[in-house]
Amino acid sequence: MECDKATVEKIQPYGVARSTVTGKPLSKEEIKQYDDFFKASLYLCLGMIYLIDNPMLKEPLKKEHIKSRQLGHFGSAPGQIFTWMHMNRLIKKHDLDALFVSGPGHGAPAVLSQSYLEGVYSEVYPDMSEDLEGMQRFFKQFSFPGGIGSHATPETPGSIHEGGELGYAISHAFGAVFDNPNLIALTMVGDGESETGPLATSWHSNKFLNPITDGAVLPVLHLNGYKINNPTLLARIPHEEIEQLFLGYGWTPYFVEGSDIESMHQAMAATLERCVDDIRGYQKKARESGKPFRPRWPMIILRTPKGWTGPRKVNDKYLEGYWRAHQVPITGVKTNPKDLKTLEDWMRSYEPERLFGEDARISDELKSLCPTGLRRMSANPVGNGGALRKPLKLPNFRDYAIQVPEPGATSGASMSNFGIFLRDVVKKNPNNFRLYGPDETESNKLGDVYQAGKKVWLGEYFEEDSDGGNLAPAGRVMEMLSEHTVEGWMEGYVLSGRHGLLNSYEPFIHIIDSMVNQHCKWIEKCLEVEWRVRVASLNILLTAVVWRQDHNGFTHQDPGFLDVVANKSPEVVRIYLPPDGNCLLSTMDHCLRSSNYVNVIVADKQNHIQYLTMDEAVIHCTKGISIWSQYSTDLGAEPDLVMASCGDISTNESLAAIDLLLQNSPSSRSAASTASTCSSSSATPTTRTA
Amino acid sequence: MECDKATVEKIQPYGVARSTVTGKPLSKEEIKQYDDFFKASLYLCLGMIYLIDNPMLKEPLKKEHIKSRQLGHFGSAPGQIFTWMHMNRLIKKHDLDALFVSGPGHGAPAVLSQSYLEGVYSEVYPDMSEDLEGMQRFFKQFSFPGGIGSHATPETPGSIHEGGELGYAISHAFGAVFDNPNLIALTMVGDGESETGPLATSWHSNKFLNPITDGAVLPVLHLNGYKINNPTLLARIPHEEIEQLFLGYGWTPYFVEGSDIESMHQAMAATLERCVDDIRGYQKKARESGKPFRPRWPMIILRTPKGWTGPRKVNDKYLEGYWRAHQVPITGVKTNPKDLKTLEDWMRSYEPERLFGEDARISDELKSLCPTGLRRMSANPVGNGGALRKPLKLPNFRDYAIQVPEPGATSGASMSNFGIFLRDVVKKNPNNFRLYGPDETESNKLGDVYQAGKKVWLGEYFEEDSDGGNLAPAGRVMEMLSEHTVEGWMEGYVLSGRHGLLNSYEPFIHIIDSMVNQHCKWIEKCLEVEWRVRVASLNILLTAVVWRQDHNGFTHQDPGFLDVVANKSPEVVRIYLPPDGNCLLSTMDHCLRSSNYVNVIVADKQNHIQYLTMDEAVIHCTKGISIWSQYSTDLGAEPDLVMASCGDISTNESLAAIDLLLQNSPSSRSAASTASTCSSSSATPTTRTA
Repeated sequence: MECDKATVEKIQPYGVARSTVTGKPLSKEEIKQYDDFFKASLYLCLGMIYLIDNPMLKEPLKKEHIKSRQLGHFGSAPGQIFTWMHMNRLIKKHDLDALFVSGPGHGAPAVLSQSYLEGVYSEVYPDMSEDLEGMQRFFKQFSFPGGIGSHATPETPGSIHEGGELGYAISHAFGAVFDNPNLIALTMVGDGESETGPLATSWHSNKFLNPITDGAVLPVLHLNGYKINNPTLLARIPHEEIEQLFLGYGWTPYFVEGSDIESMHQAMAATLERCVDDIRGYQKKARESGKPFRPRWPMIILRTPKGWTGPRKVNDKYLEGYWRAHQVPITGVKTNPKDLKTLEDWMRSYEPERLFGEDARISDELKSLCPTGLRRMSANPVGNGGALRKPLKLPNFRDYAIQVPEPGATSGASMSNFGIFLRDVVKKNPNNFRLYGPDETESNKLGDVYQAGKKVWLGEYFEEDSDGGNLAPAGRVMEMLSEHTVEGWMEGYVLSGRHGLLNSYEPFIHIIDSMVNQHCKWIEKCLEVEWRVRVASLNILLTAVVWRQDHNGFTHQDPGFLDVVANKSPEVVRIYLPPDGNCLLSTMDHCLRSSNYVNVIVADKQNHIQYLTMDEAVIHCTKGISIWSQYSTDLGAEPDLVMASCGDISTNESLAAIDLLLQNSPSSRSAASTASTCSSSSATPTTRTA
Repeated sequence: MECDKATVEKIQPYGVARSTVTGKPLSKEEIKQYDDFFKASLYLCLGMIYLIDNPMLKEPLKKEHIKSRQLGHFGSAPGQIFTWMHMNRLIKKHDLDALFVSGPGHGAPAVLSQSYLEGVYSEVYPDMSEDLEGMQRFFKQFSFPGGIGSHATPETPGSIHEGGELGYAISHAFGAVFDNPNLIALTMVGDGESETGPLATSWHSNKFLNPITDGAVLPVLHLNGYKINNPTLLARIPHEEIEQLFLGYGWTPYFVEGSDIESMHQAMAATLERCVDDIRGYQKKARESGKPFRPRWPMIILRTPKGWTGPRKVNDKYLEGYWRAHQVPITGVKTNPKDLKTLEDWMRSYEPERLFGEDARISDELKSLCPTGLRRMSANPVGNGGALRKPLKLPNFRDYAIQVPEPGATSGASMSNFGIFLRDVVKKNPNNFRLYGPDETESNKLGDVYQAGKKVWLGEYFEEDSDGGNLAPAGRVMEMLSEHTVEGWMEGYVLSGRHGLLNSYEPFIHIIDSMVNQHCKWIEKCLEVEWRVRVASLNILLTAVVWRQDHNGFTHQDPGFLDVVANKSPEVVRIYLPPDGNCLLSTMDHCLRSSNYVNVIVADKQNHIQYLTMDEAVIHCTKGISIWSQYSTDLGAEPDLVMASCGDISTNESLAAIDLLLQNSPSSRSAASTASTCSSSSATPTTRTA
């Protein structure tokens, strides 16, 4: 294909820095310091990927020093480190409360290197000390059997976002800053990740952020240029197009592009400073005036070569600035002496001896570039959100009991009754709980919650909105027609120490199968990390049940989400199928108090026969399963037939079946039966059969 | 929140047409005709939603004429109809080959009304004739027990896109136009749908479209303004923002905005004409020069009131131009005489008597606005792609056999060997087969295919690309880091009569659980629609199996996709777990020949022990399960132990276990065993246990 040379030149990641902001905030001396810090960090990344011994290269590099299986990804490390360390300057300058969210796949080396240099890693894991022995252990454990993974896994201090499956960096970051007015989530988005659907729509999260009560997300789209084996889309479109795209998403994109070290340091320092100033300015304006608005929040588009600072070519093949820099950048070091030498030269180019010195620890001068204490991004308390979690203030659910004067003969609105309870949960927890959903809260009969908290909306307002729009810049209900985004927000909100409930249609919840899987893995792994404190459970309420989709058709019928959930470890999942309104109240109260589970509650939004008084419901739900003797005719004898059911619809159908049986063979003992239950308290595959 | 009045005025859907293109191609007479056609169409939509009798309102409307349960969605119908009918003018003018893809949720009334007016519906379903009786049946069957659904279901002539679950209109449309150089897929995207992740990233499909060999997608983003109960994001951002967004996505957005009928007809006619001219111009330029390029393809942003032409308010509440117009627009007609009267007045405002006359059939003059024969969009052959399907030209898979001199002791590269076969499949089917995947083809050891067809890439090119980039504007491999998009492309490609294979990692295929579910439902339903011809199977090859993810960590481990698939009807799904390389060849040959299934093949990409010669493999795969007597010691007696396995890894492990058993109790008969198989030919839940 014909290429326009000028177009291509403008999007190549090489040369002197090209940037929107042109200030030069750094002195020569500071540039030197930042560059030393950069080199020290990069050295650690290569060490993690390659070395099992000789961590400081005190002796010539031999193949025995190399891990027998080298794993890990170098490609995104330079850009991530570059961003992290320049943010440190502003954290120190303004005493910022900042969190780092690492989006790029397998981005752990960057994050770990910063945590180690900030001293947090050694505080959390004392055997990974800042000395020769500690460095050796630190290198060895990375992507090593019994060690840690190549993502920002739960073991990583300061992480609430593992990655692995890509697409959720931005939605997680927004979840973390909602109701955290002072927090800035500095969020690296890989340009690979940016191609995913969930990430592509999550940029619109800025229409749901209130500058008065929420913090800010500062995204850095890292145009690293390549995925595993392909260029990335956003790195290969004309400059004006990508600028328009992000203006269109409602952001102010500031570009930092190039490879020349000195000018890039200046450009990044100046640009981050502008972004932080913008954020603080918008927040000040909104908070002082009391008038929330939607600014075009700043973001950075950082274009650097993939594997930046690595060798441009190895064995006559492009490495730096190409997809070959994605993972382990030089693969023949164990077998090819020439490759080994190339690696050694490369590692030595980061001057480990000078930077880490005799003690294998960076100088105090370099250390002083980092913030201290909890201001270090890898020590931000939000990164261990469970420790910040305050229990929800819950009204007494018994006060919301549905009266059941005639068990099995009274009809009641289980879900809208629960909606009243939920309204009061919202009222009592104005900063600690949000309700999430993809535009179905009203349809799901939960509209009463709007009395306590409207739908957050920072888009434009029309006159019609006053006629039942229930929109407000400050609200408690989060609705966007993206199950991915609302689920991602809720995950971020919960992982940073708060509480949430997602309401959605059962048939479409499969859309987020993989997100729920990943969250389950995260909380399961957290159980093994002793410093991780349990977070609130992720509560998913499915209301438009698959049984009731005759009018919507076959596309709206699919009960399989429960199979996906039931697959998971019982340590982290629960499925609840309450049979009636009082059981629903009891179940939800339990779920909202629980921690570290994914709770899936399936309950129909339509009117239903009510069976149990509140006292009976509590007993039933506490057991999880019970024989309903009031609907049984066995009188304690061995029954001829046992009817078992789970959930409101199937209980209804089972009881109707019993009724039919008794009508047809009234004299027979065979109609004896037990009606069983619904709120499973184990993760047994509680699926339904028609 | 403070609103900027001027900003809001520019994005309201009312008033005289505001449009980018300002020509006036229609005469007064033509405007009159188009408006009559519009009214006739809208009348049909209301008829479908409401009427069970009195279809032509020959007598005053009574509640007995109203369906007892009214279902269906009116909101998006006017805009969709408006677009469809103005496209007709250009189809006729240029003899275009065009397909209509209806994205908005529950958008069937619009599509059905056009199919009925074009005469296609009556040709396909003769009892739905164009007369009073036929119209009554046509109305009654809609969203009625035993009738048809409210989406463009398989029963809908011309549909390859049902919707229901939103997000795939654009990716399906692109799939349909790949290798269909004359086809234009006119694709309505709902502004609700546009909030979903899959849709948000699918706009980037334009970087994968070759103007020489592919057709064109003409998207119409319909800013209807509302979802079920909320405004839509894209309808509530400043005008410049949405323009920038689509410029940034690489499109040329042409706006058509307003509610004034006459000027809107002119604007839409002129704008569609410009778009078609642009498309034809770009295609001509590329095809005459032989030089593919990526133009900023045209698209339309159509902003009209939701429920356009309906009553602005009903019972003092906003209807037209508000979310209340989403579904059944007036809900009290069965119980409230005033509502019934409002509906009757509304329906009569479309002048059914004048437009359909005595015979309940529109005049020949109005009919003449439609194209004829296969040029009618509801009759486009692509809408029944199975009828266009040509079998793949497959090389003889036996020619690619892995030699197995020592069964169970030879190691071989099953997947890369299959890659050679796949290369030749690509070579032999240059316009009829594409390989899809999210940037993993090389990693999945299928890189040999690039010799026959490179990766399609219409982004910018860098010098480095010549060093193993394997990119080309004309290629056969489709890679984008969005499982949603590549799956959507493949669905569109297959549904329009071609063949495809998706290769991906097993752990991340959960991302498209819901898409696979929806495709299964589509093909299952097609079995009941007698005119639907079977399409090629959707082949999903999972290569980075969950057993081999130790290095990638817990995030990369999840075998649950097979559970999701095994949930589906055996009429439409197959799971294959070939134990070795020759079985893989035999399995893939079978899958590529099959039709109307979702075939999921799980096979490891790493080197593997080879067990079966090709002849043995064919026998084994034909049976689907077999006793491997060569690895058994039971000698026909009742074995003490049966080892059963599925798939390459578990077969390997089972045989190793047998080996250990025999070593430890060599004299015992108890080590007798059977090794069983992997390529299940039924949809039995072939899951794996460790």
